[in-house]
Amino acid sequence: MIKVGIIGGTGYTGEILIGLLLKHAQVEITWVTSESYANKPIKEVYPHLNGKTDLVCKKLELAKLSMNIDVVFIALPHGLAMDLVPHFLKQGIKVIDLGADYRIKKQATYEKWYGLKHKNAHLLEKAVYGLPELHHAKIQEAKLIANPGCYATATELALLPLVKNHLIDKHDVIVDAKSGVSGAGRSLSLTSHYTECNEGVSAYKVANHRHTPEIEQEVGLPITFVPHLMPMTRGILATVYVKLKRKGEVAKYYKEFYENAPFVRILEKTLPSTKYVYGSNYCDLAFVRDDKNERLIIISAIDNLIKGASGQAVQNMNIMFGLDETAGLDAIGMYP
Amino acid sequence: MIKVGIIGGTGYTGEILIGLLLKHAQVEITWVTSESYANKPIKEVYPHLNGKTDLVCKKLELAKLSMNIDVVFIALPHGLAMDLVPHFLKQGIKVIDLGADYRIKKQATYEKWYGLKHKNAHLLEKAVYGLPELHHAKIQEAKLIANPGCYATATELALLPLVKNHLIDKHDVIVDAKSGVSGAGRSLSLTSHYTECNEGVSAYKVANHRHTPEIEQEVGLPITFVPHLMPMTRGILATVYVKLKRKGEVAKYYKEFYENAPFVRILEKTLPSTKYVYGSNYCDLAFVRDDKNERLIIISAIDNLIKGASGQAVQNMNIMFGLDETAGLDAIGMYP
Amino acid sequence: MIKVGIIGGTGYTGEILIGLLLKHAQVEITWVTSESYANKPIKEVYPHLNGKTDLVCKKLELAKLSMNIDVVFIALPHGLAMDLVPHFLKQGIKVIDLGADYRIKKQATYEKWYGLKHKNAHLLEKAVYGLPELHHAKIQEAKLIANPGCYATATELALLPLVKNHLIDKHDVIVDAKSGVSGAGRSLSLTSHYTECNEGVSAYKVANHRHTPEIEQEVGLPITFVPHLMPMTRGILATVYVKLKRKGEVAKYYKEFYENAPFVRILEKTLPSTKYVYGSNYCDLAFVRDDKNERLIIISAIDNLIKGASGQAVQNMNIMFGLDETAGLDAIGMYP
Amino acid sequence: MIKVGIIGGTGYTGEILIGLLLKHAQVEITWVTSESYANKPIKEVYPHLNGKTDLVCKKLELAKLSMNIDVVFIALPHGLAMDLVPHFLKQGIKVIDLGADYRIKKQATYEKWYGLKHKNAHLLEKAVYGLPELHHAKIQEAKLIANPGCYATATELALLPLVKNHLIDKHDVIVDAKSGVSGAGRSLSLTSHYTECNEGVSAYKVANHRHTPEIEQEVGLPITFVPHLMPMTRGILATVYVKLKRKGEVAKYYKEFYENAPFVRILEKTLPSTKYVYGSNYCDLAFVRDDKNERLIIISAIDNLIKGASGQAVQNMNIMFGLDETAGLDAIGMYP
Repeated sequence: MIKVGIIGGTGYTGEILIGLLLKHAQVEITWVTSESYANKPIKEVYPHLNGKTDLVCKKLELAKLSMNIDVVFIALPHGLAMDLVPHFLKQGIKVIDLGADYRIKKQATYEKWYGLKHKNAHLLEKAVYGLPELHHAKIQEAKLIANPGCYATATELALLPLVKNHLIDKHDVIVDAKSGVSGAGRSLSLTSHYTECNEGVSAYKVANHRHTPEIEQEVGLPITFVPHLMPMTRGILATVYVKLKRKGEVAKYYKEFYENAPFVRILEKTLPSTKYVYGSNYCDLAFVRDDKNERLIIISAIDNLIKGASGQAVQNMNIMFGLDETAGLDAIGMYP
Repeated sequence: MIKVGIIGGTGYTGEILIGLLLKHAQVEITWVTSESYANKPIKEVYPHLNGKTDLVCKKLELAKLSMNIDVVFIALPHGLAMDLVPHFLKQGIKVIDLGADYRIKKQATYEKWYGLKHKNAHLLEKAVYGLPELHHAKIQEAKLIANPGCYATATELALLPLVKNHLIDKHDVIVDAKSGVSGAGRSLSLTSHYTECNEGVSAYKVANHRHTPEIEQEVGLPITFVPHLMPMTRGILATVYVKLKRKGEVAKYYKEFYENAPFVRILEKTLPSTKYVYGSNYCDLAFVRDDKNERLIIISAIDNLIKGASGQAVQNMNIMFGLDETAGLDAIGMYP
Repeated sequence: MIKVGIIGGTGYTGEILIGLLLKHAQVEITWVTSESYANKPIKEVYPHLNGKTDLVCKKLELAKLSMNIDVVFIALPHGLAMDLVPHFLKQGIKVIDLGADYRIKKQATYEKWYGLKHKNAHLLEKAVYGLPELHHAKIQEAKLIANPGCYATATELALLPLVKNHLIDKHDVIVDAKSGVSGAGRSLSLTSHYTECNEGVSAYKVANHRHTPEIEQEVGLPITFVPHLMPMTRGILATVYVKLKRKGEVAKYYKEFYENAPFVRILEKTLPSTKYVYGSNYCDLAFVRDDKNERLIIISAIDNLIKGASGQAVQNMNIMFGLDETAGLDAIGMYP
Repeated sequence: MIKVGIIGGTGYTGEILIGLLLKHAQVEITWVTSESYANKPIKEVYPHLNGKTDLVCKKLELAKLSMNIDVVFIALPHGLAMDLVPHFLKQGIKVIDLGADYRIKKQATYEKWYGLKHKNAHLLEKAVYGLPELHHAKIQEAKLIANPGCYATATELALLPLVKNHLIDKHDVIVDAKSGVSGAGRSLSLTSHYTECNEGVSAYKVANHRHTPEIEQEVGLPITFVPHLMPMTRGILATVYVKLKRKGEVAKYYKEFYENAPFVRILEKTLPSTKYVYGSNYCDLAFVRDDKNERLIIISAIDNLIKGASGQAVQNMNIMFGLDETAGLDAIGMYP
């Protein structure tokens, strides 16, 4: 059994991680921390977990938490994981950070976009960007995983086969992304207030979202990235517009690239919908040629809380520990 | 392995049944029928099933379907199962009917409420009403299960402990039930048209809904039943108002009644929400005393498509075949 | 022109009041206050008002606000209007309080339900409960209007014709009310967080909601009142269950009672839906007999922010100033 | 009083047109037709109109309808208006067609995109494309207005100031549009079935939507147009990506272009949201520079049923008859 600690168990990514790991046959959750709900049973914070676990949230006091664990998941806002990571690595505990602190390789880029000084920049090099479809081999060896952002996951999976085959015109990559409100987490804000976002669609952080440098790093291309808030709970749909340098056998490239990727589905008979990946770890992809404009449009859908966060974290853990990559992640999505 | 046939696999209850059975370790789906999508792979009808199954829908031609199965699930509108049932029973195949044709014991009552002549009334007596929390022993022996209606499940589970302990005043049981739109199925109608039901709440079939006689049969009391349509996909919340004959130890009665029921949760720290049972087979219950009016209010929540339909059908199958009652039904609900 | 002041202009009831009054031909808004947005143009707080008004929010400093107004609307949480009211009355300015401070006639009842000492209890007698369909004559003479609660409005309009005709059995009035999330206002809370309330239905404050004493006062009957939160922005549907003492000509009683009420529609060909009153000042009513149980079920629908709050406040103002009762309130509801 | 006939009064655009015209002080609705609801009062089809009108739907029999009208609105699916138009023009009755039949100037383009032979192609030249912000003078003189498509309206208003000032690189205009479900009308279909579109986002008719040629005709540029379906009732948000040929004084160009346009609001302090135009005839615009990629991103929001259809039709009527352009269109949008 792999022994697991979870830091930040009562945000949405933490809670869903708990749900996934409770169903994972080879994992045992040793402890969960929560600052807001310390000493409370997790099932009181999330009543859907009644009957599933009696775990009680602990305060994040490193000295009091058992270090007899194999891996720790950190599900905190960016900035907060930075200092925790070395503590665990030193004791030989692997780390999967669901936040942004170790995603960006260039310290200056991180500091510019996140407005923070990075206190453990020497670890940036050691950290592996946890997109299994791109860095599978490195993840197997990794001690520290920087779990990708939700928008980044959807976008990178849409672009990678084209990038690898040098098909994209450098000056023309546009990503118009649409996300459900859960992407903003459980912290209260007017933009996540029901009556303010229900029945409304709007763009935000236009060409200025923090997932942009992460995507540019992984695909090696400048992109125009515009996120939008949708009146729904879960799901991201990324519509990606590229100019192709040459026609190319696009379908073949996608099939080859994802030949061994258990969680990428290339749809042929239908276009992706966030509804088709709701509650599953899949990323659904499809593409359409706009020949008149020599453009290719790729559409990518994920559940932002699963493949865009906690599911991908478990997938990374599976790879790191030599388990079946799909262990604990074989749930069939919910429809309707 | 239990070999299973599914009649009507492309309605919502059929599709969810397929999803549940694909994850059930002791079950093998032999065939699925669909009139609307005959010869189509189910994954083309429901793209969330891509990668999960290659089952192709068959036409419902009894002569051509393999009878080398152990049990058949019938997920058709009422009236259509009536004639199919004897065909399977004769061949020693157990039947779980998700429709209403065998729920009502009195032929005249069925015929009055459903406006149909019952062609196999002699089977009504043999049929077991498949509410495991009430009829567990009979279900073990049953050849024919009449799987309860969704509203009926939520309501009966709310009332049964009080009924058993003779606490309810006969003349005063009111059930105000709220259902998501999926209860109306996948057939097109103006009342299920997005723009007509989104952002609106209304009552329908006031004191005149077909689940009424089914509930009255099982609880042995006349009820006033008013269903309402909610702007959401899944879930039923039933708010049940009763006058108590005496105070009684209500909490104790509920605990005793559901002591061995793995899918009933009695909430103490919170009130039920359809969100807490979303995607699971649980029924959540809580009650509140309105002492001023000598009334007890019981609130009951289920996922109408799981505990209210396909999950309960699988639970019945498990009991009929001596499996663990929770086999294939241990999914943790989705939240948020 | 009637000169108007608005205290608390940036909550939802305040903002909608502004919208209604901007369209009212006989009204001029002199000033609007807001603590959270003092010195900000209201159109920056609510961008839908761009192009409609250049009003800037003022701080609530009584000494600095012009008292050259005819009426002040107070749209503050309960407790906060209490002390403001006498200040305006003394200067001959009429007051319409959209909060609860002056709704309950008995001081003790107010203090028990609201957990506050009432500091101006001597005004309770002078205050007129502003339900025009019940207190039209008194409203004409009133200096101080206590504008009814949203649930109370929907419920009282459903019950009053029966009450007046002595038809209801005293011991058996149940109100199962369903409200959109805007009823909870614009203040942030987990229960109004999009991801927490979307796709979920639940009851709250069961038999314990503060609108209960207000309803009991106006209808003169004890009631069991259970509010529910619906996943939608606006609207209240109240389903009211009563036992009748005698059969009575119910339809006639309703028609008579609302003969001169321009905002009550008695539906005959359809049941009420919150969608039919969305954005209008109407209350739609219909009733269904449940003869088997000697019960009558009345269904009542309003837009909680219009007839349930700001629209009714304007209606009261119209009556107080001898204007056409419908002035500024003739908008056709939005559908779909 | 302008006497009006409405053909197709029971679809959403027809119904909203009726609502707008009932409130228009200078208009009188002479008749409304409906094939599905002939001889039914419109208030029975749309109960929100109870108390507002007693109009009864007529069958569309030209010989029986009074031709003593000044203007006819045709709110029918494309293909059906084609033959009706000459009938009215011949009698000196002005025509405003809300459908697509007279929008495309080139017959061949219409026939290719709509798959229909145009039977009155000689009228295409006479028809004026009814975007008041572009063709105001022509609309004043027009006998036949082709009211623009909803997507087209949102997109063209975003692009026109740039087009006029020759700022856009021809080869790089991308429109990613998001629409509420009401855009698909009231006809039943699986894609508008509540449970199929709720909580889901997807693209459709990628680079292949019929509003494309209409937009290209009006802006004179090839565009890549991708529409998406959002889980909400009303609203279109168009996110438009262009490469600029030179920097240019973008803000100035927008202000100049819309100087006399009463329904275009250029937002400076916030980005557009469909919620801010909900129920109003406004188009809200904002733009953001993506300097790194030498791109400009323009965001445009309308209510698809008002400015995107019936409101714009009334605006055209006002201009044609020399009325105030805003008559009957001054409703304040609903928020929240």
